[in-house]
Order: sequence, then structure tokens, then C-alpha cells
Amino acid sequence: MTHKIILDTDPGIDDTMAIFFALQAPELEVLGLTTVFGNVPAQMSAKNALSLIELAEVDIPVCLGAAMPHVGPESSYAYFVHGDDGLGNINHPEPKGQLDPRSSAQFIVEMARKYPGEVTLVAVGPLSNLALALKLEPQLPKLIKAVNIMGGAAFVPGNVTPVAEANIWNDAHAAEIVFGASWPINMFGLDVTYDLPFSPDFTSQLAEQNPKLGGFVQQTSKFYTEFYSQGKDETVCYFHDAFPLAYMLDETLFTMTEGHLRVGTDPLHKGQTSFAPNGSTTSELWLNMPKLKVATAVDHPRLTQLFIDVYGR
Amino acid sequence: MTHKIILDTDPGIDDTMAIFFALQAPELEVLGLTTVFGNVPAQMSAKNALSLIELAEVDIPVCLGAAMPHVGPESSYAYFVHGDDGLGNINHPEPKGQLDPRSSAQFIVEMARKYPGEVTLVAVGPLSNLALALKLEPQLPKLIKAVNIMGGAAFVPGNVTPVAEANIWNDAHAAEIVFGASWPINMFGLDVTYDLPFSPDFTSQLAEQNPKLGGFVQQTSKFYTEFYSQGKDETVCYFHDAFPLAYMLDETLFTMTEGHLRVGTDPLHKGQTSFAPNGSTTSELWLNMPKLKVATAVDHPRLTQLFIDVYGR
Repeated sequence: MTHKIILDTDPGIDDTMAIFFALQAPELEVLGLTTVFGNVPAQMSAKNALSLIELAEVDIPVCLGAAMPHVGPESSYAYFVHGDDGLGNINHPEPKGQLDPRSSAQFIVEMARKYPGEVTLVAVGPLSNLALALKLEPQLPKLIKAVNIMGGAAFVPGNVTPVAEANIWNDAHAAEIVFGASWPINMFGLDVTYDLPFSPDFTSQLAEQNPKLGGFVQQTSKFYTEFYSQGKDETVCYFHDAFPLAYMLDETLFTMTEGHLRVGTDPLHKGQTSFAPNGSTTSELWLNMPKLKVATAVDHPRLTQLFIDVYGR
Repeated sequence: MTHKIILDTDPGIDDTMAIFFALQAPELEVLGLTTVFGNVPAQMSAKNALSLIELAEVDIPVCLGAAMPHVGPESSYAYFVHGDDGLGNINHPEPKGQLDPRSSAQFIVEMARKYPGEVTLVAVGPLSNLALALKLEPQLPKLIKAVNIMGGAAFVPGNVTPVAEANIWNDAHAAEIVFGASWPINMFGLDVTYDLPFSPDFTSQLAEQNPKLGGFVQQTSKFYTEFYSQGKDETVCYFHDAFPLAYMLDETLFTMTEGHLRVGTDPLHKGQTSFAPNGSTTSELWLNMPKLKVATAVDHPRLTQLFIDVYGR
């Protein structure tokens, strides 16, 4: 059985590792990549996604998406994390192909209508496109199978502010809309993604398994690893964006905790994801929100092995 | 060497245990009890404090304090935690003595002026009186030695809402004023107080060491322990309020982490204490706040033994 997915992404280095993982996994049928601003501006994000599918020699739609948050001015970008080109400054090839004519939000809505109840949205960037899709088609939650999100921080500090993770912080109002909609959400935040550092030995293994795509991840990860290793005793990086995809291959890799979640939108708490597990609160501020599942623990050796295995297929 | 303290309190069952601890400790000179609404209404809080010093046979001022939060309507009370009378429904004796004619805030200011640089405020209820004292005497931070607070939750969930601890939630605007003032603050929140559950065996030991005061704590804790043990496999309660006092006897009991803290005042984040350890953020929302120290770990066996030892003196 394969899962139809749309991968909503802002490549981005961990996005690259996640995109190749999705394309390598026979369990996943990637209907298209919908891109969004985030790690880099929207145009660069879309262009990078095109480059990556050409490297992988697959022909799937790549859509241009939101360039700005749902409310407020254009965001700043994480060039210091992902490099000036978003892919680690390794002079990756310019894409030859063209973007799909549809916007990311439009593509999401069309695929949801075409395959009602079959499509899982795997969102690993700011949630702007998903919010726009909800504005285009209010019935979207009934048409979508599930929404697997890389973003947020339930019981751990943020990485952009003391309380906020980058994807949710980048478009907190969109996140409020997405988490407020009645569809099954599985959230993979810093609770699990920061819990599992990857050493250069890991990307060497990806490269060994898959010289072309794993080799590209290894090259592009050098800049990214330098960023994450600043001021630390160890040389590591984090492949946040691949986590919600891995869940689709093996749900038993994660401990999922059900509850209610609120997204902060005021300046101090912008992008904070305040999570209340079931039974932990009587506050209607939380209980009035739809339920979701949040990954609160991850099996390190098995997830690491899954990444390596899939790259070797 | 003894430390001059003013214990700002809303008794309250863990307050009771803390008040007797302070009165039993030869290292602490308790200048007076300033009371405040919180666990119970202000009048009940003051009356209970009077009863407790009469039980302990000490003659120190007890002041009536704030009855309402700094901003907004009267709060709700925690009768379900502390009993209808705030002391566990054991028919404790009515006080015979009189309240000090000064308000809690006024008493704090007068003692700070009388003993400049010598007085530590130990605040184990909502921070309303401390905020009012800052309004009476803007120079108060220069006159006070330190402020040791039981309240907040830095890296753990809240106990009133998913993000807020009860004392800070009860008067978030007062907390914002107190944490925004330039005096040395040591915060003892749920990170440490919820980390150390106390079984009935502990209160038995207090009663053995000190049949009168420890025995009273044992009796009054029964209701409180029932509340904390609901739906749990173990019979325990938490003596939150004694932690900032124990720090004054032995600072090595705690791991203190320095950083900056913001208090939430919007409805969703009311009373949240968002803590950024030194070096963890570049956000001016945090860096513009004064530095403070937050207790992030506690030595369980040694703190437990200290409580028992002091009750036996």
C-alpha cells in the first residue's frame, strides 16, 4: 500500500534530505512538491525544489507558493543556516524544467478534490500554503487524509525565540488557522527532531548507500553542520524535515501524545505552540481547539536505520 | 549570621509548612508575615497567618495585603486544594491577636527603609504586595537585599493552565512589574517544586521531630495530599512554598540558572514565565529584562533532610 502525499517544503538542507527520502520510499507516492517561503524566499525555494527533482530524475509538479506570512511583513531568511542559496553553497545545478502553473495552495486543493480522503499533506515549512488552501476550499479538512507537520515545540524551548520553533514562528497566523481546522494533525516538533543529532558519519552512510542523492545530502550538509556545531563539543546537524515522512513508513518509531494545542500570535509568544495533553487542563482556551497528536519521543536507532535503508533502495 | 526576611504568604497548606520552617530556622529572622489573596481570599489569608504564629507562640507582625490582582477582577480561590478554610478543614483555632495596622506593601517599604540592603523578601503567593510596594517606593529595589519567589515554571508545564503556575497566574501584571524591577531575584518554580513529591511518611517525620508544629502540618496536609493524589498511583503532596526559604539556609541544594524572563499577560499566556537562559537568545524582548536566577534542579535527599532537621530544632 502506498500513501499519496504532497510535500510542502522550503528547501533548505534538511528539506533536501527529506525530499530525497520521500522520492526513494516506495511506500510514498509524491503527487508534487508545493513550495513556500521559509528557510529562503519563495522563488529560491521553488527553484531549489526543481533542481532537486531533476537531480533525482523524477518528473513531478513543483509549485510556487506563498512568499509572505498570512499577516504582517515579509519574513527574514535563514541564510546563516542553509547557505546563501539555501542548499549549502555547493554550486548545485540550475534547474532546466519549469514550475507547474498552479500555485501551491491551488495544487493542494485540486489534488484533495481529485483523491478525496487519500492525500496526506506533509508540511515541513511555514504553514502558509495550507492556510491559503483552507481559504480557497473551506471543505478541505474533509478531503484530506491527514496533515503531518514538522514544526513547533511542545515541551522544549524554541529555536528562533525562547518559546518558538522556526516554521511556526515564520507564519504564526497561518499555523493558528491550520491547527484550528478539523483534520487529523500529527505534529513533529523540536521535542523529537532536536532529540536526535546526526554526525557526519550518518551522511557518509547515506552517500555510501546512494552515491548520487546521499552524496548530494552529504555535500550540502557541510555548511548546515557547521552552523549546528558552533560552540558545541560535537559535530552534528538535525534532519528535522524527514521526521513526519518517516512516521508514514513506520508509526511505531514515535510516541504520539494526544491533546490540544494553541499557537501564540502576540509579539512575545509569536509562534509558540502551547500543548495540553488530554486530561491535563480544563481550560476552554485549549479544549475548544481540535485534538491533534504530538510526537513526544522517538526511537533513535530505528529511525536512523530507516533513513539509511530508504536511501539504499 | 541570620538573614532578615519578610515572608509574603497566602496560607494555604504548603504556606503553613513554610511559615513554621521559617520560624524554626535560627538562620532566619522573620520580621513579619505579609499576607495576600491567593490560595484563599485576603481576609482569610491574614487570619490564617495570625492563627499560625499563635500556634508557633511567636509574636511578629502580620499584615493584611492585596485582595485583588493588580489588573482585572477578583480571582477565584483554590478551596479544592487547601480546604474551605485554607488549612485543610481541621478546625484550627481562631486567632486571638490583632493584625498589624500597616498594609503588607507599607510594611515591606518600612522594613526596607529601616534595614536598607538587609531584607530578603520571600514571596510564596501572588506577587501583588511586592508590586504595590514598588508603587509606594520606586527606590525599593535598591533597599532590598534579594527577592526569593515561589512561582512560575521555566521548562515544565503550568499547574493552572498548560503554561502558567498558580502564583504568577493569580496576578500576572504584578509579576510583570516585580520581574521587571532591578533587584536580585531567585525564582523557585514548578521545575523544582513539582520535582520532589512528599509522601505521608515525610509529614510523619515532621510530626515526630516537632509534635506541635510538625503535627499540625501532618494534620492539615491530609486534605492537600488527597487533592494531589487524585488519579495517581502514589499518595503524595508538594511543599512548594518552603523551597525559597531552604535556599537561604543552603544555596548548594539548588542548581540556579541565570537568564532573562518574561511574564505573559494576554489571556492565552496569562502568568506564563518564559525563561531564556544566558546565551540562548538574541531577542531584545528577553534581553531588555533584568537578569534573574531560576532554580532548575534540586537535591532531593538533602532538601528533605533539611526540612526534617529544622523542624526538630
